[in-house]
Amino acid sequence: TNQLTQKVLDTCAALACCTEISGQITRPYLCPSALQVHEQLRGWAAALGMTTRVDAVGNLRSRLESKTPNAPTLYLGSHLDTVPNAGAYDGILGVVLGYALVEALAGQDLPYSIEVLGFSEEEGVRYGVSFIGSRALIGTADDMLALQDAGGASVREAILNFGLHPDHLREAEAEDSALGYLEIHIEQGPVLQDLGVSLGVVSAIVGQDRLNLQFVGRASHAGTTPMHLRRDALAAAARFMVAAEDLARETAGLVATIGMIEALPGAGNIVPGEVTCSLDIRHARDDMRAACLEKLLAQAKQEAEARNVVLNVIPKMAESATPMHPRFRQLLHDSAADLNLPHPELVSGAGHDAQIMAQKMPAAMLFVRSPNALSHHPDEMVNTADVGDALSVGLRFLERLAAE
Amino acid sequence: TNQLTQKVLDTCAALACCTEISGQITRPYLCPSALQVHEQLRGWAAALGMTTRVDAVGNLRSRLESKTPNAPTLYLGSHLDTVPNAGAYDGILGVVLGYALVEALAGQDLPYSIEVLGFSEEEGVRYGVSFIGSRALIGTADDMLALQDAGGASVREAILNFGLHPDHLREAEAEDSALGYLEIHIEQGPVLQDLGVSLGVVSAIVGQDRLNLQFVGRASHAGTTPMHLRRDALAAAARFMVAAEDLARETAGLVATIGMIEALPGAGNIVPGEVTCSLDIRHARDDMRAACLEKLLAQAKQEAEARNVVLNVIPKMAESATPMHPRFRQLLHDSAADLNLPHPELVSGAGHDAQIMAQKMPAAMLFVRSPNALSHHPDEMVNTADVGDALSVGLRFLERLAAE
Ligand SMILES: NC(=O)NCCC(=O)O
Ligand SMILES: NC(=O)NCCC(=O)O
Repeated sequence: TNQLTQKVLDTCAALACCTEISGQITRPYLCPSALQVHEQLRGWAAALGMTTRVDAVGNLRSRLESKTPNAPTLYLGSHLDTVPNAGAYDGILGVVLGYALVEALAGQDLPYSIEVLGFSEEEGVRYGVSFIGSRALIGTADDMLALQDAGGASVREAILNFGLHPDHLREAEAEDSALGYLEIHIEQGPVLQDLGVSLGVVSAIVGQDRLNLQFVGRASHAGTTPMHLRRDALAAAARFMVAAEDLARETAGLVATIGMIEALPGAGNIVPGEVTCSLDIRHARDDMRAACLEKLLAQAKQEAEARNVVLNVIPKMAESATPMHPRFRQLLHDSAADLNLPHPELVSGAGHDAQIMAQKMPAAMLFVRSPNALSHHPDEMVNTADVGDALSVGLRFLERLAAE
Repeated sequence: TNQLTQKVLDTCAALACCTEISGQITRPYLCPSALQVHEQLRGWAAALGMTTRVDAVGNLRSRLESKTPNAPTLYLGSHLDTVPNAGAYDGILGVVLGYALVEALAGQDLPYSIEVLGFSEEEGVRYGVSFIGSRALIGTADDMLALQDAGGASVREAILNFGLHPDHLREAEAEDSALGYLEIHIEQGPVLQDLGVSLGVVSAIVGQDRLNLQFVGRASHAGTTPMHLRRDALAAAARFMVAAEDLARETAGLVATIGMIEALPGAGNIVPGEVTCSLDIRHARDDMRAACLEKLLAQAKQEAEARNVVLNVIPKMAESATPMHPRFRQLLHDSAADLNLPHPELVSGAGHDAQIMAQKMPAAMLFVRSPNALSHHPDEMVNTADVGDALSVGLRFLERLAAE
């Protein structure tokens, strides 16, 4: 498996060159560089005897059919899109490992078919909503088609533009008799690194809300408008941002992030009349998250009103905290134990396609250590040996599942 | 003068159509729509027997030569550029009134020549530095040529692109024997409106600093990065923005504005690694302004360091508070008194080209009431009768100056 591990890393490095902005890795949903990724992985799939298609929302799907009649399908994979200026492993490592696991089987027939999934949209950067790819597999992507990106292009238009057919959504759905979904992903956080272990079994994925807050005040002259006559949208937004940081710091397990902000008209000598910013808020407990969100929005409203600024809250996405499937989790623990590898459980602070797939089938996740705890950053990394461990545990998982 | 007042307003309305973005008035420095403005005003100048040129930095300059040999020049005017999504009067009203005053003279010869100035860059939006047009007249624009806009184009390049010659700066300078400079401008604030008068005489223009603050932290994952491990550039910037509003609210006469902000990479689920925002800070007393600026920058540095974020301060512009010339002020008071119009004095919270011209010659400003105290906003307005008053006082000023 040393050679196969190297192939996984080499493939990740090669695919890092498929980007919309040269010099960095930026591959949003349904962009030309996604086609380049598909092209390279199709080649590998063909060499493995797999048949490949791209479904209605742009997911890459390669199947290895079992010889057993009416065999159910095990889904394996992760996502191919990235955040702006991303690292080389978030998502794509799990897809590449899917193909590598099929290669590791070396022609061995299993009592289930394997479908490797390269989800097309997990980050939610282009449309503000994550998991459009996996939603199509559980049949809940229909509402996504009308979403618009910053340039006003709808998901429907982007799909057509990519050469696909948004009306073929039904054909993207996973089969009802599916065995389940396994996703291997980098941890993207400090837990496994701090424990000094290569792998972890995800117990649950946190719930998250994403919203946009629009503050509408009134633009006016920075020199002639006295402070008490201002309707400064950015001053209101700044108070909200401070409240979000304060609340997250004082609430164990809560993270709150303002990642995007735009102030209009955007000139140094004009009091901003309109500000739009994002809020991303997460907690392992849904009730805690809901209570914190309510508190924050109330504070935002109060700061806005104190400045005669109108606050519009635009919900973009809400996902509940999602436990992983007990039987699949156990299979991962047992597989790691077979290989004498430590296998601690941890909560995922990042959302993942597994969170969506879990609504339709048993789903589980295996995390690979992030040696610098860094993700959504070009310095994101993995240890070669850890990827080898993930490959070994994944293969054991396939064998144990076949034996059940 | 009723007809001439109407011509002034009609001309402002017509020139409002010269814009880079249709549906709004947006006319930054050295853009194609400035050429359209020049074209229309050249026509009027020619009809008045004036000769017109565009100088090396793009100022429109129309001269009416006195028959007196070696007559000195009186400069009259304001600026032609606008902020993004501007009103129809900020700046351009004073230029149009310059031509209208020459028309009001109806061929009468004066012992001085008149040069109507349409300054090319007063707002400072494109390069972050105001008054490039008037700086050329006092011979201090040379340092401006290397400034770069957001797209990386230098002032020099923009000038060449506009068909002008940046090396001809010396020919743009005002004559040493100049009589002085008179600028008529909308107040852009609430003072004259609150007093219930049409016009005011500017006693002094506030000093202002403009800077950019760059906060450099580290981008990371919004879900997996615990609050205490973040190096959130936007969280640091938000504390600074709050500090700026707090300080300005508690310091009489201080205004502080953050009008521009950009956060990178700018996705909802990424902790911002880099933020750049502007600071515009003004006070009538230079020592007060300096002390407040120092205090704010210290707070910004502290909030940045508390988050392991680096703060870079990039000064863009600093102008001292500038008193208007006593003799010219008196001429304005006397002219208004001749017409039985009230003529209160007021401080200008906005910067103006008169602030620059005052470094080389007597300079004065006449303010026209802003009926809704609104400027740098599309709803900016003037009362027709107030514009008529400004025209009458301006004409009286020319006559009194001729008689001195
Ligand atoms: N794994 C990952 O980065 N997912 C993106 C969605 C999220 O921000 O949680
Ligand atoms: N008058 C005016 O709007 N000037 C622009 C420069 C400033 O912001 O003071």
